[in-house]
Amino acid sequence: MTEEPRPTLEAVAARAGVSRATVSRVVNGDPGVREVLAEKVRRVVDELGYVPNRAARSLVTRRHDAVAVVIAEPETRVFADPFFALQLRGISKELTAHDIQLVLLLTEGRDDHERVGRYLAGGHVDGALVFSLHLDDPLPGIIRRAGVPTVFGGRPGWPQAEGGGPDAPYVDCDNRGGARDAVRHLVGLGRRRIAHITGALDQTSAVDRLDGYRDALPDVDPALIAEGDFTPAGGERAMRELLDRTPQLDAVFAANDLTASGALRVLRERGRRVPDDVAVVGFDDMLPVAEQTEPPLTTVRQDIEEMGRLMAGMLLQGRAGQERGTGAEGEAESGAGPAGVVLPTSLVRRASA
Amino acid sequence: MTEEPRPTLEAVAARAGVSRATVSRVVNGDPGVREVLAEKVRRVVDELGYVPNRAARSLVTRRHDAVAVVIAEPETRVFADPFFALQLRGISKELTAHDIQLVLLLTEGRDDHERVGRYLAGGHVDGALVFSLHLDDPLPGIIRRAGVPTVFGGRPGWPQAEGGGPDAPYVDCDNRGGARDAVRHLVGLGRRRIAHITGALDQTSAVDRLDGYRDALPDVDPALIAEGDFTPAGGERAMRELLDRTPQLDAVFAANDLTASGALRVLRERGRRVPDDVAVVGFDDMLPVAEQTEPPLTTVRQDIEEMGRLMAGMLLQGRAGQERGTGAEGEAESGAGPAGVVLPTSLVRRASA
Repeated sequence: MTEEPRPTLEAVAARAGVSRATVSRVVNGDPGVREVLAEKVRRVVDELGYVPNRAARSLVTRRHDAVAVVIAEPETRVFADPFFALQLRGISKELTAHDIQLVLLLTEGRDDHERVGRYLAGGHVDGALVFSLHLDDPLPGIIRRAGVPTVFGGRPGWPQAEGGGPDAPYVDCDNRGGARDAVRHLVGLGRRRIAHITGALDQTSAVDRLDGYRDALPDVDPALIAEGDFTPAGGERAMRELLDRTPQLDAVFAANDLTASGALRVLRERGRRVPDDVAVVGFDDMLPVAEQTEPPLTTVRQDIEEMGRLMAGMLLQGRAGQERGTGAEGEAESGAGPAGVVLPTSLVRRASA
Repeated sequence: MTEEPRPTLEAVAARAGVSRATVSRVVNGDPGVREVLAEKVRRVVDELGYVPNRAARSLVTRRHDAVAVVIAEPETRVFADPFFALQLRGISKELTAHDIQLVLLLTEGRDDHERVGRYLAGGHVDGALVFSLHLDDPLPGIIRRAGVPTVFGGRPGWPQAEGGGPDAPYVDCDNRGGARDAVRHLVGLGRRRIAHITGALDQTSAVDRLDGYRDALPDVDPALIAEGDFTPAGGERAMRELLDRTPQLDAVFAANDLTASGALRVLRERGRRVPDDVAVVGFDDMLPVAEQTEPPLTTVRQDIEEMGRLMAGMLLQGRAGQERGTGAEGEAESGAGPAGVVLPTSLVRRASA
């Protein structure tokens, strides 16, 4: 394939009507630029797809032998939710097999994402693996401006202009199909009032699982849907809401296993027997959580560690391709390469449904 | 204070009797140098205290605004033991308050430590916080050669030549005093056969806690001491060993709370009532572990999060000092600065002793 010439610093400066020094300061995150000017420069950087020089140089020389992992959650959540440990395990194994350093960039929250962008743009890593994105997160745009090859964990849900869109390479599981299977299983058990506790609805995985639930129950009463946030506490809160609103419910599909564990606690508290009175299905098959709930959890299995391994593998293949001069990353960026890899899910039956 | 001039690349080359290019290759971790030559160069680097140029430059310019955290454990252990999450929480809060990026370098194991050294030497971070060192670990020497300011978590236990010694800055708790208090508490309860399950004895924290146990029981029967490794599984193994060897024991001091949780499981399995038959004391006061054991655990409290915060603070103070030209890090390296900060511990009484 032919590659278009990379847009230059000069081109950005000319189009934005500012000096090269101003563009350089904005790109490097220097705060000493008026916000109205900085915003204009960032818009032109996005329009032209400009990649800062320093990062471009590192793309060519490839001498850091390091890959950054960015999890768009506060570090407290990263260490509290075993999902991230599992995905990191897959990433770590794959990178270590290629003697590449895993650099985990931790943050306290969204306010720190500009700083993460500066580190990524600073020529310290050869690429980035990014997961747990939220819809209104500035991170995709920040990462695009940083100019490092990136693979996302989970289908990105923001518009193309923000650095994502249909061609951003990502790894995901079949969230919608898995959710559909879970609800059909409950229908097959004869359940008639099947509730759903969603995940955080600013994440595509939660939206896709809700869509799968609706696929299986097109005429469902909206009172049977309560919003959670992928945490046990969110599951407890939503389960209480649902029982207060629809006490006669006879099944719950929870957006993930942690949510289900919270829901099970509330059902026990309220004297509902599982699965006799209320059947419960989770999502993830996160061990040991799914085996240690009371009763053990029927759930939709996704291979989280394998997804991490695949993300790292996709980044390294792009990398190897570029070293051989085949421009694999250019392909992915220009839309010619395969963008998303979606892994199948399967239902794991235990005692809860 | 006056600072000695930094030894140069030339000085290292001359003393080692090799070319400058060879020194440069060794310092940058290039594998294309015969091991006998590389070893000689590394020895001279250590003797002269040579700091590679690239790192030296970053010390002066200080523009990365990033600090690396290296935990000398496989990533699986990092995510399984809440101790590390707590220490990282303190570090993250302190660094974020100064808008400095926390860069966690994960590894699969000791084989990856040379690669960590290359990343540290590559000019990607302004300093390093290193914890969970083991006695035969090459990491201290690797880090010294990387030439970045470093603060250790836990008293380093290796000889001065390896980059540590009495003047390496560190943060620790009073492991020996805390252990002594724990055992004296058991003595005060009238216990006569007090066993000890140690931590991993290639770590100074485990050795210090064993010394504290012996301080309180100078004539103890060695059969009452069993080796653990700071994990619940290690605690189970050691507890079985102790019960087989000395069935009449009436108390256990476990080197940390995770070890105690494993010991409690085995005591329950064997039908021993806690604390009636066997009193148990842990170390850490790690929550929620210490509150959720059956029965809740009497333990020695150390403020793990605060230790992390202090480590980061010491590094940043050195950093600020150097920016003002006062050479704070030089002080620490030359032995004029305060090396270790040791925090007090306190006994927290719950139901197990």
